[in-house]
Amino acid sequence: MNHENRKAVILLSGGLDSATILAMAKAQGFLPYPLTFDYGQRHHVELEAAKRVASQEGVAPLKRIELDLRSFGGSALTDDLEVPKNAVPQNPEEEIPITYVPARNTILLSFALGYAEVIGANDIFIGANAVDYSGYPDCRPAFIKAFEALANLATAAGVQGQKMTIHAPLIDLTKAEIIQNGIALGVEYGLTHSCYDPINTKACGQCDSCYLRAKGFADAGVQDPTPYALRSPDLTTGSKG
Amino acid sequence: MNHENRKAVILLSGGLDSATILAMAKAQGFLPYPLTFDYGQRHHVELEAAKRVASQEGVAPLKRIELDLRSFGGSALTDDLEVPKNAVPQNPEEEIPITYVPARNTILLSFALGYAEVIGANDIFIGANAVDYSGYPDCRPAFIKAFEALANLATAAGVQGQKMTIHAPLIDLTKAEIIQNGIALGVEYGLTHSCYDPINTKACGQCDSCYLRAKGFADAGVQDPTPYALRSPDLTTGSKG
Repeated sequence: MNHENRKAVILLSGGLDSATILAMAKAQGFLPYPLTFDYGQRHHVELEAAKRVASQEGVAPLKRIELDLRSFGGSALTDDLEVPKNAVPQNPEEEIPITYVPARNTILLSFALGYAEVIGANDIFIGANAVDYSGYPDCRPAFIKAFEALANLATAAGVQGQKMTIHAPLIDLTKAEIIQNGIALGVEYGLTHSCYDPINTKACGQCDSCYLRAKGFADAGVQDPTPYALRSPDLTTGSKG
Repeated sequence: MNHENRKAVILLSGGLDSATILAMAKAQGFLPYPLTFDYGQRHHVELEAAKRVASQEGVAPLKRIELDLRSFGGSALTDDLEVPKNAVPQNPEEEIPITYVPARNTILLSFALGYAEVIGANDIFIGANAVDYSGYPDCRPAFIKAFEALANLATAAGVQGQKMTIHAPLIDLTKAEIIQNGIALGVEYGLTHSCYDPINTKACGQCDSCYLRAKGFADAGVQDPTPYALRSPDLTTGSKG
């Protein structure tokens, strides 16, 4: 499928997933316009990763938006709550993880929609994933479809008969499948950052995100390029339950 | 209808419409949690109006969020474009007004949704109006319904079986009807601010928003409490075409 340099907004956190969707958008022939956010998260090292990932040929300059989600409270990622370490995963049907940021993907997609409208793009890529983040209500396919429906009613482009598409190509993939897809497309995962709670600029090796990342590389049979500060997440002894 | 002090998030710009929905929410028994934005608009006088309007008994403290819409560009309200004066109104079916901010209501409602989730509210009030702002795609009833559908998929509350409701009680009202409703509820419209392009702290009396406001008061048969800097909008000589 070649989209002949049609512009596409890419939500780019600097993590493994968003680096993969950037590569996927390029491979489909889109001209990627990466958009990143500083939403009061404690891990500014993630923003540096977003800059590194975006700095490549055929990608428009990284757009950065400051967001004030911290004033809401309600999440370990923006508050001073402890990020869970080696916690037993919660049952996604019953509990929302503490790292869930209220309405986060709705907010990020809304900004992506505004940016898309300004640059004249009809496509938005988001790295939402229903497998590893199944406890997050806004990482489910039904949410993505509902946002796409909204996008087509909310914008001048929609009113003028253009079709706005929200691409969530990772939604049904395991982390290992995401990595295998990315490796095939030449993604340099050493540039990316996933840790919720980095120590200096290194991944902690103990949070949920480090665990999922390390397990993804192990399951994919790919060498994990991540430098962990403390120790590589223990994938064998059931530290995650 | 009495909602027995159920919390409701109120999108409060400090304008005439949002002051009216605040009064409506109170009258329905909601405990209003007003939320306002500084989205790089040039009229900071609007924020002062929001503070004045929110400072009343039975209303939670005003929450203020800084937004970075200016970095998008694309609108006379956040850019350095000229705000149209005494312009012939555009045909809403054909053209999007220059004062339209891309995806604005989607972004504002997304933040309201996040705030609602944090405070445990299932109701959000927005002063969207399809009559006076019919050129804005995100002021139509279909947009509000689509956002409500999204809200029920996007949030922990929705997942846990609670119903999130987006209230847009002004959507089908004329400006005169809005004013008549507000007067009946005791709204002090002298505290509110509508002008897109104020001169010092006074309404310019010449922009679209001043025109619609003045015409609303005239049509409602209510004295307009607005101090205009230059002159009261001319409602008789067809200055708006």
